[in-house]
Amino acid sequence: MKIDIQTRVFAANELAAAENRKYLDSKNLFCLNMISSPGSGKTTILSKTITDLKGKLEIAVVEGDIQTELDAQRIRNAGASAVQINTHGGCHLNAEQVAIALKKLEIKGPGLLVIENVGNLVCPSAFELGEHAKVIVLSTAEGDDKPVKYPATFAKAAAVIINKIDLLDHVDFNLPRVRADIRQLNPKCEIFELSARTGRQMDRWYSWLLENTVS
Amino acid sequence: MKIDIQTRVFAANELAAAENRKYLDSKNLFCLNMISSPGSGKTTILSKTITDLKGKLEIAVVEGDIQTELDAQRIRNAGASAVQINTHGGCHLNAEQVAIALKKLEIKGPGLLVIENVGNLVCPSAFELGEHAKVIVLSTAEGDDKPVKYPATFAKAAAVIINKIDLLDHVDFNLPRVRADIRQLNPKCEIFELSARTGRQMDRWYSWLLENTVS
Repeated sequence: MKIDIQTRVFAANELAAAENRKYLDSKNLFCLNMISSPGSGKTTILSKTITDLKGKLEIAVVEGDIQTELDAQRIRNAGASAVQINTHGGCHLNAEQVAIALKKLEIKGPGLLVIENVGNLVCPSAFELGEHAKVIVLSTAEGDDKPVKYPATFAKAAAVIINKIDLLDHVDFNLPRVRADIRQLNPKCEIFELSARTGRQMDRWYSWLLENTVS
Repeated sequence: MKIDIQTRVFAANELAAAENRKYLDSKNLFCLNMISSPGSGKTTILSKTITDLKGKLEIAVVEGDIQTELDAQRIRNAGASAVQINTHGGCHLNAEQVAIALKKLEIKGPGLLVIENVGNLVCPSAFELGEHAKVIVLSTAEGDDKPVKYPATFAKAAAVIINKIDLLDHVDFNLPRVRADIRQLNPKCEIFELSARTGRQMDRWYSWLLENTVS
């Protein structure tokens, strides 16, 4: 019984995700699903990306949070369109919520659509939203054991951003170990090591976004 | 239908939680349910606490993780008994899992039992485990918007630990704002501002543990 209902929930989500993907492809939008722990820096990375790629890449954002409109406001302040989804307790976004947000955004395309998922390293990775790729963000302040402790999430990433590289001297974070652990779970994903706060090594991330976006 | 099943899941959990509580009380064990994002420093706080309170307070730990036995091993290295629960994808602990772990631990009491929940700031706060109090850990590296973004979790805390205070100079974290936001959600909870890494201001945390533990 429990499994039947779970299966139906996932099946309904898969259908909605497939519809989202069709819509995104029809608009030539490259879509990323960003997943991380709370406070890894997703919104800061996005804000800086929007500012730095102004004029080069059209970016819109769907913001997922349990409550508040704070993150959508930060994205708008950076100069991009944003729609906030509040899950009111829900620990992840689902494809139906994203479908509603896409309608509200009315993006023309081509360009980049980023879905910033609810801060949670577990549940969001189980729900496809129609994205083309998942980007996992891990901050150096979170410790270097996260890939082995959350393998399902890291295994699905097209790219992993190791953020807050500027804190490396102040935290216990074995960067070579993390690189190796990610590679073992996911040999092909891109790994970016950067600091959205200082701007360090954001260039490779920008190049990757531009390469993957139809212009 | 969906609500019926959810209600039954919560009811079964409540029953198991009540049984756990009876068991804990019969042994004079004060029990904390520690909840935080991944990488806020729960295990480091616990390891240091175990080391520093050796001879003063009997401590045992139930470790919740999706995978790996890493945290239980860290706790054992610090000198306490630990049982690891692996949820294999599950995003929170439930009371039945804790009941099994309690049997394995065979703690005599009196003392302190800490349940270190799965790293997740959302789901764990919805499942009572039989604990006497919830402790939320928030690291300064996670940003200062977490209380307003995860209000249900912070509202249930008997204590909030603001960890990694040693990083304050290197991150954007408005400590007075966080204090005020926590107070607004939860006027009575204890707030500890400390660094488990440097040992700064661990004393008040220790005093609170000792005061709450029957000896």
